Order: sequence, then C-alpha cells, then structure tokens
Amino acid sequence: MQQRQIKPKLKLIPLGGLGEIGKNMMVLEYGEDIIVIDSGLMFPEEDMMGIDLVIPDITYLLERKEKIRGIVITHAHEDHIGALPYVLPQLNAPIYCTRLAKGLISVKLKEGKALNKAKINEIEYGKSITLGCFKVEFYPVCHSIPDTAGLIIDTPIGTIVHTGDFKLDYTPVYGEPTNLSRLAHAGSKGVLMLLSDSTHAERTGYTPSERVIGEALDLIISRAKGRVIVATFASLISRVQQVIDAASNHGRKVFVFGRSMSDNVKMALEMGYLKAPPGVLGRADELRHTPSEKVVIMATGSQGEPTSALVRIANHAHRQVSIASGDTVIVSASPIPGNEALVNRTIDSLFKQGAEVFYHGLSQVHVHGHASQEELKLMLNLVRPKFFVPIHGEFRHLTLHSRLALDAGVEEQDIFRLEDGDVLEITPKSGKVTGRVPSGHVYVDGLSVGDVGGVVLRNRRMLSRDGIVVVIVAVNQQTGKPVSHPDIVTRGFVDTVECKDIIEGGKDLVAKTVNNIAKNDNDVASADSRVRDELNRYFFEKTKRRPMILPVVVKI
Amino acid sequence: MQQRQIKPKLKLIPLGGLGEIGKNMMVLEYGEDIIVIDSGLMFPEEDMMGIDLVIPDITYLLERKEKIRGIVITHAHEDHIGALPYVLPQLNAPIYCTRLAKGLISVKLKEGKALNKAKINEIEYGKSITLGCFKVEFYPVCHSIPDTAGLIIDTPIGTIVHTGDFKLDYTPVYGEPTNLSRLAHAGSKGVLMLLSDSTHAERTGYTPSERVIGEALDLIISRAKGRVIVATFASLISRVQQVIDAASNHGRKVFVFGRSMSDNVKMALEMGYLKAPPGVLGRADELRHTPSEKVVIMATGSQGEPTSALVRIANHAHRQVSIASGDTVIVSASPIPGNEALVNRTIDSLFKQGAEVFYHGLSQVHVHGHASQEELKLMLNLVRPKFFVPIHGEFRHLTLHSRLALDAGVEEQDIFRLEDGDVLEITPKSGKVTGRVPSGHVYVDGLSVGDVGGVVLRNRRMLSRDGIVVVIVAVNQQTGKPVSHPDIVTRGFVDTVECKDIIEGGKDLVAKTVNNIAKNDNDVASADSRVRDELNRYFFEKTKRRPMILPVVVKI
Repeated sequence: MQQRQIKPKLKLIPLGGLGEIGKNMMVLEYGEDIIVIDSGLMFPEEDMMGIDLVIPDITYLLERKEKIRGIVITHAHEDHIGALPYVLPQLNAPIYCTRLAKGLISVKLKEGKALNKAKINEIEYGKSITLGCFKVEFYPVCHSIPDTAGLIIDTPIGTIVHTGDFKLDYTPVYGEPTNLSRLAHAGSKGVLMLLSDSTHAERTGYTPSERVIGEALDLIISRAKGRVIVATFASLISRVQQVIDAASNHGRKVFVFGRSMSDNVKMALEMGYLKAPPGVLGRADELRHTPSEKVVIMATGSQGEPTSALVRIANHAHRQVSIASGDTVIVSASPIPGNEALVNRTIDSLFKQGAEVFYHGLSQVHVHGHASQEELKLMLNLVRPKFFVPIHGEFRHLTLHSRLALDAGVEEQDIFRLEDGDVLEITPKSGKVTGRVPSGHVYVDGLSVGDVGGVVLRNRRMLSRDGIVVVIVAVNQQTGKPVSHPDIVTRGFVDTVECKDIIEGGKDLVAKTVNNIAKNDNDVASADSRVRDELNRYFFEKTKRRPMILPVVVKI
Repeated sequence: MQQRQIKPKLKLIPLGGLGEIGKNMMVLEYGEDIIVIDSGLMFPEEDMMGIDLVIPDITYLLERKEKIRGIVITHAHEDHIGALPYVLPQLNAPIYCTRLAKGLISVKLKEGKALNKAKINEIEYGKSITLGCFKVEFYPVCHSIPDTAGLIIDTPIGTIVHTGDFKLDYTPVYGEPTNLSRLAHAGSKGVLMLLSDSTHAERTGYTPSERVIGEALDLIISRAKGRVIVATFASLISRVQQVIDAASNHGRKVFVFGRSMSDNVKMALEMGYLKAPPGVLGRADELRHTPSEKVVIMATGSQGEPTSALVRIANHAHRQVSIASGDTVIVSASPIPGNEALVNRTIDSLFKQGAEVFYHGLSQVHVHGHASQEELKLMLNLVRPKFFVPIHGEFRHLTLHSRLALDAGVEEQDIFRLEDGDVLEITPKSGKVTGRVPSGHVYVDGLSVGDVGGVVLRNRRMLSRDGIVVVIVAVNQQTGKPVSHPDIVTRGFVDTVECKDIIEGGKDLVAKTVNNIAKNDNDVASADSRVRDELNRYFFEKTKRRPMILPVVVKI
C-alpha cells in the first residue's frame, strides 16, 4: 500500500454506454494508478443514421496513458470487449481476462490487425493480480456466456466488489454458479463499495435457471414432426449445448448455420466449452441426405438481423434451407429493445410459410442473463457495502436498484446514481461527484473513427426526411449575371414526373431571384442564401415539405 | 333478399393495415352492393422516411363507386377513422357510426374541410340499418374509447358477426359491457362468419377490467405528497374519468394539458361522456396558486411524443410546469411497439429530475383494450360460426387466433388467414381466396397523397445512410471539354474539414475521368455514369461508405 502525506482519493469514472452507465467502460483511479474495466461498444440508436458502431470517448485515458496498469475484462460480450480493436492501439495496456474471453478477444484483434502488440493475460477464478496499488481477483458469476467474472478489487482505502453482468443460477448449464460464499466472505471482512448490474432491476422475483430452457427445448424437439430450427445468440454457448443435448436425446443431427455461430461453435468445441457426442454435429453437405425428422438446425438471426441465416431462411433467400410445412422454428432469445419490429416480421414470415414457431412470450424458450430484484437484494445482503453504485442500466434501472439498496440498509447519501463522465471521489468516510470528464459518443462509420460528428448526422437526418434539391446556376465571372436558365436536380423530395410543374416553377423563381441580385450585387454568397430562402418558402407552400436546398453557382 | 338465377358470392376484402390485416378498412360485397367497414390510417414504420401518414389503397372501391351503400365505423380511434378526410371526398358515401364517433369524425372532417358534403348518421346500439342487401346492427363492445361497436350483418347468404376492437369487461368504467347475450342469440340462430379482433391473441388468460386501474390510481394519488401528473391517451376518456374521480376523492383539482387532451375532455364533458363534480376541473391560470398537494395534472405524452405536454415537462421545455422533487408521475399506458425508446427516455428524464414515476411493467397503471385468449375463446363459443376470419393482427396473431378457433370446433378449411388485398369468396357451403386487388400503402407526405413512392423513399434511405456527393463539371457545349476544374459539394458524407484531402482527390479523379471521356466521346450521359462509378469506387476505398453521387454537367 502506498503511504503519502496527503492521501489521494479513489476515483470511479464510468465512460460510455449510450445511457447505460458504465456498461462499456469504467475507470478506477488512485494516485498514480489507473485500471480500466471493460472496453465495449454499443450499437447505434435509431437516429444515428449510417453509423456502424459507437465506442467510448477515451480522451481522459489518453491524457493519463502512463498511469494505466491494465484493462480488466469481465466477459466476452461485444458491449464489453468490442471497442478493444479501436482503443487498444491507443492505450497500449495489458489485458486481463478469463480463458474464453482471451480466445474471443484474440480473434477480434486479429481481424482488426491489432493482435501482434497486444498482451492478453489469462486469469483463473480465485487468483489475484496486482495492478499498481490495486489487487484484482476474478470470481465466477453466471451470465449468458461462459467464463464470466465478477471482480473483487482491493484498493488502498478498501475493497470494491464489481458484479460484472450477472445472475444467480444454482444449476447453470456450463461452469460454476455465482460464487456466493466468496462474496459473503468479502462482505464479512467489509466492503467499501459495491458496483452492481442493474439491467433487470425492473423485474420482480428471480431470473429462472438456464436449465428450464433445456427441458422446454427437449419437449419441443421430442414432439416435432419435421425439421427443427433453433435461432439464438452466437455467443450463448450454453444454449447451443442444450440444443445438442436435446437433439442427441432424440436421435437428431445438429447443423450449424451462420458465420458467427459456426465460428463460435468451432472455437467452443476446441476449447472444451461445448461437448458433442460423436456424429451429432453434421456437415452442411450432409443436410440434403438427412431425413427431416433427424435434423436440428442452429442458426443466427434471433434478433431479426437482415443478413442472418434465420432471416434469409424466412425470406426464401438461403441457399441451402427453405421452410417446409411441418418445420418447427424456435426463436430462443427475446428481442433487444429496438429490434422488436425486425423480430416480429421474421416470425410472421415463418408462420406464413407454414412453420410452427415458438418464441418469447409464447413459450419459455429463453431466459435472461441478468439478475432480477430478489437476486439483487441477495447480492446487497451478502456484500453489505458502505457505498453503492448501480451500474449497467438506464437511469430508471439505477433508480429502482438504488431503492433496493436503501431497503437493504445502505445510507441514502452513500448511494450514487452516476452518469457517464461523472467523477465519483471516495474516501473511507464519504463520496462525492466532483467533476465531469469527456464521455460523449465516438461514432465509427466505415473506416473512420470519430470524424462523423453532429453536423454530418444532422445533415443525414435532414436528408432522410424530405430529400435534397440541388440548384445549379451558371454566372458570368465578370458581370455576375446568369448565362443560362437555372437547373434543378432533386433526390428523395418529390416524384419528379408527377411534380414537374413544381420543379419548373422553382427554376423560374431562381432565375428571377438571381437576376434581381445580379443587378444590385455580385456577391455569390448572398445570392446563395436568397435562392435558399425563396425556394424554401416556395417548396413548403407547394408541398409542406422542407428539403435540404443546395445552391451551386458555377462561375464561367 | 335478392333472388337471381345465378347467386353472386359474398366477397370479403381487407384493405390496408400495414401488416395488421383489415385493421384500417374492410370491404364487404354482394352483387351490386358494397359496404366499407372502417376507414383508418396507420402511422409510418421506421423505414418510411419523412412520411407523415399511411392510408389504405382504395383503387378497388373507386372502380365500383356506384355500388358503395355506406361506410360503417366501429369506433373513433385514428386507425379506424383517420383516413376519412382523404377517402371520403373520393368515395362520397354516407357514414354510419355511434354518437361519439360522429362527434370526433365531424371535428376531423372540419379540419380537413370535408365536412360540408359528408352525411354522418348516428346509429344507436341494437338498431338496424339497411344498406342495399345488407342489414347492419351495432352492438356494444368494450374497448379503450367509449361508444365502440361490434357489427351483426345480415347478408343474403347468412349472418356475419364483426367484433370490432373489443375486450370483455363485466365492470366497464363507462357504458355497457360487451353484449354477450346478443352474441349468444346470434350464435343460436346460426352465424355464417365471425371476424374477430386478434390484436392480443398472444396473451393468455383474461384482460383485466378497466376498474382495476381506478383502484391503482386512487392508491397512488392518496399516497402522493406533491403534485401528481398522469399521462395517457387523449381518447381514453374512461381513464380521464378515473383520474377525476380519484382526484376528487382526495381533495385535488385536475388540470388538463396538451391540445388533444384538452379538446377531448371538453368534447366529452359537453356530450356527457365525462362527469366532473363542480370545482374539480381547474383552469390553467389557477395552477400557480394551487398548493402542490392539491394538484393533479392530466397530460398527453404517454408514448413519448416529442411535442407532447409530458415530454416537454420532462425536458424542462414546458411553459407552466416543471418537475419538482416530490412530484409523482403516472404513465398510464404501455408503449406502442416502436415507441419503447422514446417512452423510456421520458421516464429516465423524469426520474433524473426527482419525480417518483409509475409506469407499465412496474405497476398496474394501464390495461389494454383488446381481448386475451380466454375472451377470444368465449367469443368463438358464443357465436359458433361456420367460417372464421381472424382480423386486426399481424400474421402470427392471426395464426394463434386460428388455433383457438380450431380448438373451438371450427373446421380447418373454414378458417381463413387473409392478407390485405385478398378476395375471400364465400358461399353458404365453402370459402376460397379467389384473387387479389390493389392494397399497397398510400403515403401521405405533407400536402400530397400518393406521390411519394418507392423511388423517393429509396433515395431518402440511401441519403440517410452515407449522405450525398454533388459533382459539378462545366463543359464547353461545342467541344465537350471541361472548361474548369470540377467542384464537389457534400452533405452528410464526411467531415469536410478533416477529410479535405479525400474530397480534393475526388476532384482530381473526376477531372481525369472527364478529360479521358471527352477525347473519345461527347456523350454526357456516359460521362455521368463513368464519374459515378469512379467516385463510388474511390470513396468506398477511402471511407468504406457509399454516398449517393450526383454528377451535374453544366454545358456552356
């Protein structure tokens, strides 16, 4: 432990998460040491037009690069590791994670050509690593991907427990249950601060065990007359195991479709996370010769992703598989908020082609990977922290989780509902938000990171509503007078055949406007804005639409 | 009843509904007579960029105008009456509806300046009207707006029962319960065909009575320390009544905010659908002088609509009301699919400002207006139809509802899951889909109806993803050679300052391309497509984006 005249304060800073605080990245800082927890990406919201990915703003870290002792990863979901190819080359810090996460991060960094320089350290549950003044221990928690960890972090002023993404599950399909006795032990020794997953703080009761899904899958497969197609998340290895088990119970072969699903299954088999009796996994070319009642197909597409295997199957666009009457489809996932319409469209389309479809809400074919209220209360009761920071949730989740903490005996002034960028400073006695650091969204669009900002997005939104009108005026460089009648080209504004008159009227209006200006004023800029104003008024009057108007003056 | 040599068949055609079949409009035709059931609009889906409204395609009706005996309206929700201002001037048929629907349709047609010529006939429950060979009786059903009707239609070949949008509710807040004995009577006399609401065919059990909401509201208001703000649908008059009752029970005044809510409350009071004890309804200017614990505010915004009263309050943008710590907000509605993100953002923002928020999922502050599975079964059992057509639902709802009908004893070949535009022909013995009629979406965008088609929308979608690049090349008319260096203007593509080099590179590429072409070929069209191809390739290589490229050749 460091000894100084004036003790530094412990700082906790959530960075990035599109409203779900600390989901993608958190910073823990004490004196000259920083550790980064997770480094994930978010998928863009509806109004982030054309944006591919969103990553956290790491300005704060770049200014303190020399302090960073390591990046600690809780589990290998995209929203916790997906930003590594972008931030790792800049931060250049060692990574600490469990075995499966190491495997998946390596694949990801290789794709992004960032693997060579990366130092990825595999950490076992129960082992501690020393990162500057921090001692970090990984403990097992249950979640929807194997090898998920929570963190117990010893700091110079006390112990922090970070739950990661977790649920309790006393009968997990793969691996160990969430280690409650380790948490109880930490709690009995005294925990300064608990950071706990709030994703499902709205749900009462307990999240069911993964095991109930196995029974449901087995029943559906046992009753199915034709082929069975199961769609789920590619990373939900335990679900794949359950499908393999059920298929094998009922003498069916499993065929895996969809690139990410195939890659993950291959990796999980090699690393031992997945076990399949010999002969159960079929090769794609065997499918044609296998009778329907002996077939289970596993596919991506549980979120209705347009290019996924299931959606291509539903839309008659898959090379090898199309739905036949008597087929059974199980969508073993629930829609991530925002994906409802895509998922529903896919289900409708499968029904139309005669499939029997089992899906969220109708049958118990999916359980979530996050703790419900009774589990959150149990966590609070075991850990009994002085300070409580609800993480991984939107503000209403943090609020509801905070109430549970209050009920569990945490003092109101010791509960902190942070926002991304908030700097929480902690002493053994009290905590306070003392400032803010940059934490905006960094957009990844195609090859570029961060160049698409407010102006570009605002333009895309404007273009998407009423299209664009390009006005071309050629003027004589010397006299400033137009040398020909103006031209107008539109895209996404009106039907150019039906609305020919409106466009012609616009040209005449521009000709008049420019002539008037040219007599008094040769200034092209002012002509631009006059043309824009006049056309804006004219088009709105005629159509009640406001296209973007782009005057182009060609000087000859 | 008509007697002919060859009996015509009865035709049923659902028109329009954005995937929810027959929701907005249905056509019933026999020989020389047509009746239209409902005439509603849909709100555009996410990818219908810039579109304001979607209305049914009435091509089929326009070609048979002289046959139309009337437009029968089941209830006054937008998705059942909202297209009247657009289609009524074209069809020019009399409208038949209940009293409240008449009031709301009149307001709507007045706004659209289509009231003068309209003939709106108010029909009482239990009374029949004769429309050509059809006899139509309105019977009461419960739904989320008063005066909702189901229809019992006598046709020359048998009786049709249409449920409208309905739920059973033995203890409705306003009006009569769904008239089960009338349905049983019809069933005992023999029903040829049942058209039944499938909106909630996914839900097991019974939809709770509106009355349970009254108790929840009363409890929350009784416990609230500060002001209470209740947001719900403007047309949900019975919910407004429940809020007035609870407020009055606890000595609070009710203030109504939001234009549509105020208009509806005023109309409902005048027509007697709403009752308020003297002094309970407050005027906006009294609000300032009323102590917080005496205030209930009713507002629009339960769907997170950006310009609604609740959202403006949540965003500190309301002139009269802003949230103070201790305020209670009740969002008495559940999000319509697609609105989840907006609703969640509003709730988050209210929590951030210190309000206590009660919302769907957390508390029983809303019940739906549609029947769940047990109610649908009861309907099937009372009516005992020969033919069954599930309506008002997406394909999966129709499928699930069809299964209920099968279980209730309807023969499989007598159940028809239609799609919009399908022509179902019925004889007393059998039914068959014999063809299709136009039933595409007609888009309303600003002033125009129908001119925005596939091309315009495709362009808007393309513009929204990667923006636009306008390339301006001035060429000599005689020689076909460029007279100056090309210019490039972009919007929504890249940051033009950061990516200056890419744009300059593009200009050089265009100059080279156009020079090469000019030597061999004066054809401007081929120059256009060469410029487009070259720039497309170049920009994709540099940015991995595909902006729309619009070459403009100015001939001098």
